Amino acid sequence: MRRRRGIEALNRITQGQGRAVIESLADIAPALGDFIIDFSYGDVISRQQLDLKTRELATVAALAALGNAQPQLKVHIHGALNVGASREEIVEILIQTAVYAGFPAAINAVSTARQAFAERN
Amino acid sequence: MRRRRGIEALNRITQGQGRAVIESLADIAPALGDFIIDFSYGDVISRQQLDLKTRELATVAALAALGNAQPQLKVHIHGALNVGASREEIVEILIQTAVYAGFPAAINAVSTARQAFAERN
Amino acid sequence: MRRRRGIEALNRITQGQGRAVIESLADIAPALGDFIIDFSYGDVISRQQLDLKTRELATVAALAALGNAQPQLKVHIHGALNVGASREEIVEILIQTAVYAGFPAAINAVSTARQAFAERN
Amino acid sequence: MRRRRGIEALNRITQGQGRAVIESLADIAPALGDFIIDFSYGDVISRQQLDLKTRELATVAALAALGNAQPQLKVHIHGALNVGASREEIVEILIQTAVYAGFPAAINAVSTARQAFAERN
Amino acid sequence: MRRRRGIEALNRITQGQGRAVIESLADIAPALGDFIIDFSYGDVISRQQLDLKTRELATVAALAALGNAQPQLKVHIHGALNVGASREEIVEILIQTAVYAGFPAAINAVSTARQAFAERN
Amino acid sequence: MRRRRGIEALNRITQGQGRAVIESLADIAPALGDFIIDFSYGDVISRQQLDLKTRELATVAALAALGNAQPQLKVHIHGALNVGASREEIVEILIQTAVYAGFPAAINAVSTARQAFAERN
Repeated sequence: MRRRRGIEALNRITQGQGRAVIESLADIAPALGDFIIDFSYGDVISRQQLDLKTRELATVAALAALGNAQPQLKVHIHGALNVGASREEIVEILIQTAVYAGFPAAINAVSTARQAFAERN
Repeated sequence: MRRRRGIEALNRITQGQGRAVIESLADIAPALGDFIIDFSYGDVISRQQLDLKTRELATVAALAALGNAQPQLKVHIHGALNVGASREEIVEILIQTAVYAGFPAAINAVSTARQAFAERN
Repeated sequence: MRRRRGIEALNRITQGQGRAVIESLADIAPALGDFIIDFSYGDVISRQQLDLKTRELATVAALAALGNAQPQLKVHIHGALNVGASREEIVEILIQTAVYAGFPAAINAVSTARQAFAERN
Repeated sequence: MRRRRGIEALNRITQGQGRAVIESLADIAPALGDFIIDFSYGDVISRQQLDLKTRELATVAALAALGNAQPQLKVHIHGALNVGASREEIVEILIQTAVYAGFPAAINAVSTARQAFAERN
Repeated sequence: MRRRRGIEALNRITQGQGRAVIESLADIAPALGDFIIDFSYGDVISRQQLDLKTRELATVAALAALGNAQPQLKVHIHGALNVGASREEIVEILIQTAVYAGFPAAINAVSTARQAFAERN
Repeated sequence: MRRRRGIEALNRITQGQGRAVIESLADIAPALGDFIIDFSYGDVISRQQLDLKTRELATVAALAALGNAQPQLKVHIHGALNVGASREEIVEILIQTAVYAGFPAAINAVSTARQAFAERN
């Protein structure tokens, strides 16, 4: 149940990218991959209290502010686009990062967004 | 122009709380207060590329993830409520913090939300 | 199953303190409390690949390094003591924090340890 | 030698405050206090490659940016003043924190400066 | 006015490198580039309360401590050199990072300095 | 004395890798290399209050949680293996990082572990 719900949310948001992350964990930390599917996507991200687009934009905001999670930021920039956010909205979230976490975090997040956008063109 | 736009955005979002922060800076760092109004609120937060509710929820997500900005997190939990977010949506953002920044960050953010909610009752 | 395993691990490690944290979440974020029991304690912390004492000392090391999770650090200093670590071992972990995360993080962690130790005397 | 040099630097910069920190560590982590004197002050801070005022202003900048070391930030705001920095220079460093680490870090650092300044009045 | 003052400060400190950063933002986040010039350099960094060399050394200290802003650290190591700091002073700031943010932050900052120094040889 | 003790601890734990780090610092920051040997390894890490395996596992936990010290994390994953920890125990520490510092930190730490393990095969 959690597993199926998790896989559905993972597929809908990351369209294959998240699955690749899970598979890359299979060699040395398969339990971590299971927890990502069952807990992160099955328990938390598939909750109905927030629409998926707002959820993904908030995730982008959190990862940009943290500043040391660029691979995950890229996955969720794709994720936000996959569930209906526009590039303009994502960039706006990243610009706002300058206010709360400083310009270096914002600049580095925009670099990651540039890569993500390029992958979709 | 930036000043007026900043004050309007500050008032609309924080309904007096942000003004109190600005005034508390007036004794030793008035320029920082000016920058908050003119730059943070006048230049960035009043941009139209994102609706205010999504903007505030993203701010809550970023501050909760950073984990060392509890006073500002409280201001923006109020801010999110002031521009139309529900308590349920805010709590949902904070629960999601556990996935991206760990359970301690999520638990501490919920403590701050409890204080903010209590102040409004 | 996860629930029962989680409650057992929570009780064994935190001896009531963790339960108080869960209950404090019940008013506005009960799902977060459930996730702490079911996922953190039921899925992860009760895994058998590491003895509980090493697990708790590693948790103390991580929370001390993060530096913005003092309430959780206190819970796990108690937790480490509850599962067999000595005060001397815990202090040693905290001193080592100076090497990896700097002296301020180490000093603040020792302050938290002082409080935890005093609560047990 | 390191000990004497460390105590001299500690006294010159913190004028008793640092000594109080060392003494507060004596009950449970005396080795950490020794390392602060011998290594931090005796080995590093008393090096001659940088004048003390620049060194203390750089320390204030680093601690303000980290954001979770307010007690140490207060000690070094006093330290910077003790070795010749002006309040205006310190506030300027803290305002600049907004650019590199975001406005919350800057605002919280100014709050700490307000306390330090009040203690000297 | 802010724009001209910002461009002058940017040019003086970064001698072209900062301009390259601004231009790299022009495709997807031109507003962020404007904010860097007008706010960061025009409003904050060109303030007169601190000499430029102390300002840049403090910036180097803050970015080294944060630890996840290596591209910006490199820009400001160049910046500090451009406004009169010596390599020895910069290295001294980075060594001191070990005390406040831990040895990994100091070691990684020295690696970035090595790259910056090599670019100037 | 500190020097000899430091070199012995460095050699035992890092088996040459740490020595390479020290040598890489010799060109621009030799004092930092000395401090790593004399203070980090000679003063702190060679203390007897904790067995080396627990010490290294705690170091791995701290570095994984910090999230911006991947080169050092790799050195200490090797270090933990060199002093008797199993790959399974290290992976377990890294999985637990998800609970305290979030899934991105855990996933990135597992990537670093994969590289370290591959270097030993």
